Amino acid sequence: MTSISSKSGYGALDALRGLCVVAQTPFDAEGAVDLKSVDTLAEFYFKHGAAALTVLGVAGEAPKLTQDESLAVAERYIRAAQGRPIIVGVSNAGVAQLAELTAQVMDRGAAGVMIAPPGGLKTEEELFSYFAAVFKRIGDVPVVLQDFPFSTGTWMSVASMLTLIERHPQIRVIKEEDLPSITKITRLRAGTGRRVGILTGNNAMFLPLEMGRGIDGPMAGFSHPEMLSGVYELYTAGRVQEAHELFDTYLPLLSYENQSQWGVAVRKEILRRRGAIKSAVMRSPGPVLTPTDHAEIDFLLSRLDRALAARR
Amino acid sequence: MTSISSKSGYGALDALRGLCVVAQTPFDAEGAVDLKSVDTLAEFYFKHGAAALTVLGVAGEAPKLTQDESLAVAERYIRAAQGRPIIVGVSNAGVAQLAELTAQVMDRGAAGVMIAPPGGLKTEEELFSYFAAVFKRIGDVPVVLQDFPFSTGTWMSVASMLTLIERHPQIRVIKEEDLPSITKITRLRAGTGRRVGILTGNNAMFLPLEMGRGIDGPMAGFSHPEMLSGVYELYTAGRVQEAHELFDTYLPLLSYENQSQWGVAVRKEILRRRGAIKSAVMRSPGPVLTPTDHAEIDFLLSRLDRALAARR
Amino acid sequence: MTSISSKSGYGALDALRGLCVVAQTPFDAEGAVDLKSVDTLAEFYFKHGAAALTVLGVAGEAPKLTQDESLAVAERYIRAAQGRPIIVGVSNAGVAQLAELTAQVMDRGAAGVMIAPPGGLKTEEELFSYFAAVFKRIGDVPVVLQDFPFSTGTWMSVASMLTLIERHPQIRVIKEEDLPSITKITRLRAGTGRRVGILTGNNAMFLPLEMGRGIDGPMAGFSHPEMLSGVYELYTAGRVQEAHELFDTYLPLLSYENQSQWGVAVRKEILRRRGAIKSAVMRSPGPVLTPTDHAEIDFLLSRLDRALAARR
Amino acid sequence: MTSISSKSGYGALDALRGLCVVAQTPFDAEGAVDLKSVDTLAEFYFKHGAAALTVLGVAGEAPKLTQDESLAVAERYIRAAQGRPIIVGVSNAGVAQLAELTAQVMDRGAAGVMIAPPGGLKTEEELFSYFAAVFKRIGDVPVVLQDFPFSTGTWMSVASMLTLIERHPQIRVIKEEDLPSITKITRLRAGTGRRVGILTGNNAMFLPLEMGRGIDGPMAGFSHPEMLSGVYELYTAGRVQEAHELFDTYLPLLSYENQSQWGVAVRKEILRRRGAIKSAVMRSPGPVLTPTDHAEIDFLLSRLDRALAARR
Repeated sequence: MTSISSKSGYGALDALRGLCVVAQTPFDAEGAVDLKSVDTLAEFYFKHGAAALTVLGVAGEAPKLTQDESLAVAERYIRAAQGRPIIVGVSNAGVAQLAELTAQVMDRGAAGVMIAPPGGLKTEEELFSYFAAVFKRIGDVPVVLQDFPFSTGTWMSVASMLTLIERHPQIRVIKEEDLPSITKITRLRAGTGRRVGILTGNNAMFLPLEMGRGIDGPMAGFSHPEMLSGVYELYTAGRVQEAHELFDTYLPLLSYENQSQWGVAVRKEILRRRGAIKSAVMRSPGPVLTPTDHAEIDFLLSRLDRALAARR
Repeated sequence: MTSISSKSGYGALDALRGLCVVAQTPFDAEGAVDLKSVDTLAEFYFKHGAAALTVLGVAGEAPKLTQDESLAVAERYIRAAQGRPIIVGVSNAGVAQLAELTAQVMDRGAAGVMIAPPGGLKTEEELFSYFAAVFKRIGDVPVVLQDFPFSTGTWMSVASMLTLIERHPQIRVIKEEDLPSITKITRLRAGTGRRVGILTGNNAMFLPLEMGRGIDGPMAGFSHPEMLSGVYELYTAGRVQEAHELFDTYLPLLSYENQSQWGVAVRKEILRRRGAIKSAVMRSPGPVLTPTDHAEIDFLLSRLDRALAARR
Repeated sequence: MTSISSKSGYGALDALRGLCVVAQTPFDAEGAVDLKSVDTLAEFYFKHGAAALTVLGVAGEAPKLTQDESLAVAERYIRAAQGRPIIVGVSNAGVAQLAELTAQVMDRGAAGVMIAPPGGLKTEEELFSYFAAVFKRIGDVPVVLQDFPFSTGTWMSVASMLTLIERHPQIRVIKEEDLPSITKITRLRAGTGRRVGILTGNNAMFLPLEMGRGIDGPMAGFSHPEMLSGVYELYTAGRVQEAHELFDTYLPLLSYENQSQWGVAVRKEILRRRGAIKSAVMRSPGPVLTPTDHAEIDFLLSRLDRALAARR
Repeated sequence: MTSISSKSGYGALDALRGLCVVAQTPFDAEGAVDLKSVDTLAEFYFKHGAAALTVLGVAGEAPKLTQDESLAVAERYIRAAQGRPIIVGVSNAGVAQLAELTAQVMDRGAAGVMIAPPGGLKTEEELFSYFAAVFKRIGDVPVVLQDFPFSTGTWMSVASMLTLIERHPQIRVIKEEDLPSITKITRLRAGTGRRVGILTGNNAMFLPLEMGRGIDGPMAGFSHPEMLSGVYELYTAGRVQEAHELFDTYLPLLSYENQSQWGVAVRKEILRRRGAIKSAVMRSPGPVLTPTDHAEIDFLLSRLDRALAARR
């Protein structure tokens, strides 16, 4: 077992409660990284209730960046966060590259890194070996363990996850996005070992129910993060019915954005319309919205406006 | 190319519009097929607006039945339907078994069969070879081609699907449940060949938008089929906003049931509560609901009741 | 844990030593099952040293048969074996169908059944649940557990396999065809639980080394089964170098047949040339040999003839 | 279509005939890259008949290296090759990283790069889009297209490969390691478009037959590259039977090394014994040989020695 130093480095992840936005990576019209939009987008997220950000995830188009670009994006987000926690996705089948990026971003002030197991781990034996190699290599770094089997192709049972938590004290938070997430959260919380944070993904499609199952907040992207933070606040204040009502108001749009990379294209377009980023472009290869898609977005946003007006 | 006889056998699938419910297979508490509940469930579906039923799909637990049981369930549904169309899922990696079940159910009065490509077809060449063998073997039988890659593991591009439609006149309907379904529907409809019906799956999660993209109705399971038929009726009557409003009222529950086999367990429980089937049990191996799950269902149903009351 | 009766039913599998041929299913030129060739092929196998046969495996084109055909083939092999053990492949994602076929073939005199886990078992929890359901359903039947992850897509660690052996006394034999098989055999043999037989697959590509690692014989198909039985005999007689020499003489042809379904087409062609079956046809969809392929087979067989002549 | 400049850069790949060794990456006992052993290993390969080397492939443990290490290994091999062609594996799901490494190694004198499609390309449409993005980004660089579906999970039909060759003039060589390779080679050679080189992989398990099907040589790793170059020389000199005899002499060892990463561990151990590298260690996570494995290697090498002695 790795020994964890007493330094305060684990505090940020241990204290994480509320909304952690899965941040987009903005590009300009030519596909170059747009660092100025990182600033405006970070400001947008925090203004709408984010307690922390996760950058360079799958929805952040991380696999399309060079290593230098990854580092530049992470650094800019860290600077823009002005002390609020930035978690950096570093998942990589190659342990050496994973460890290198981890060291670089921690050195620049990240609060921790997020790691999902790569595809191709065939048995629990291989899963445990992989993480033994990873944790040995990265050392004393706070980690979010991401359980996202539909993306990675590697499934972890609750028992396996509890074993990983027990073996590796660096794991402070689980990002749970297996389905059904709700039953898995209940079973994780019933585990008798060390308490870790649980944040949920799946674009927050089940957020209020997941709150009822014992999570610490959502870790998700959405064009309207104020809903995610609002649901969290209402639910933790005991206003459960209001939390559901707020959630349901946005659910048609949330569901619309919950369509993998195409949904990310929609989200970026709405973020652009809201002034959070300058260009909605996704780096190639990626989806491109058609006029029909744009008209559908218009329609859904106008329905949302009316529904919000009716709530007031 | 197979030549299609002029017999009226293709009429039922060609005329298919509106709600086609993906039907559950009821079991009793010991896990035996409950044919009496087939009768009550079929009545329930038709009373709530079904124009047709699809039986023995994945959500119908078909892979857990013996061949004799499959045939018994199909027959009972056909009898209960009293002339309304029953489509029978016959997907099978083995062409001989697929053809045998097809012949048996067509002989007993099915309106057609639904076929998804099996997993393990590695190239379009293999996809085309597989369907050439299938259509040669089954002959002159109306077919719903199911595009459900997340379940089968075999992806079909729009171009491939249009080729299959062109080569095999037996294909009368596409069940589209790739994601995003909406963009794929638009591209299928833009194809210049023979017109086929398009019904959509994915538990109808995008039904009103899919209606706007040109589908002929939903082919989905839901504990409240009256919503699916209602959205279809409203939309085709030009009452688009009302269609969306009706849909959105049920969306939290629809989304809750959209969690693969666990969602099917929820659906069967609600169908039981509504008196449509006698027991909610799923045949082993399958999920079993906990008291926490039941309480969540209570909560969601009471919220739905209130929302429906507010609409009146 | 299932309790195993004291009836002698387990004796055949427990006593299994030597060559167990993975038998082909013969078809006639039109693709119908050729039961007369089952008789001649069974005779051929036993004449060339088979101690037992495994029928209806992947190489036996089982997935292309109807259930009735499967049963007819199994019955015919059982009759032709005249008391020697026939193991029947019954693998099926559907437990009901698996159990039904198991009961039918055991009733007709099979020595046991062979079961591989289906694809789609995502965690060890799901693996154990699947087999719990299977063994509960089939009851007191001797089983060969097949470990063939490249075909099934489901990987089992040595630890998982030892757990299954411990939990389910019906498991009497392991068919080991993960790669490297040799290291896995060593680790299985190092397990401290109940002894089971280990036979190896992978078309016997590593047979003499696997003998050195502690197996009880090959379970494989080959157009020249006399090599497989010969290597087994020599090795168990302590004539290790001779066993290797015999093996190496056939290795180019063995390797040539070790090319999945295409290799099976080659094997059937050579079995036809040797008079063991009437037609080499594989049921559609399946590979068809070209004149170039036939010329290559001629070439390899003539090289084999010369090499065998040189050994005399 | 990309236009190809008239510069001589394509000459090295166009002229490639004979043995192209898939080179190992040597590490020291602590797992650090051992650049001195790159020198001795390159010398060993060329001394035993290599016409070119492919570095940073899967067998070269490329996924375990950082980007800087990858570049250092490639550079060292280029220097050690003293003008002979070095092909660098640059496969990466991320086009940006792929393009960056391509530019870096071409700048340092590589003869070309080898690219396999990543996993997760679901249709031919996606396959073509991926390579359109790749070739647009890397520009005028000679490319080996690697067809290795068992490793990548992405299958390419012959028709798809011919389309890629037609669209992208940068493709000069195919590395064919689908199975059966022999029939695919025949079908590729029957394609009527631009001629490309075909080298074969699969650890050269079918080398002499592949020669007969029209390849230009092997691209494979083996502890005894003199066999690979010898078979090529004999075959091209018309001495077909001798080519087969030489091949068959080494086949038991070749097959033994043909066991994925475990086979690579064996290969590195034998290369160490032959003085080609200083340490046989594979970077973690990777297989570690046991005393039993070492004894088996001793046994196989002594058998090889005897067989070679008998040939003289």
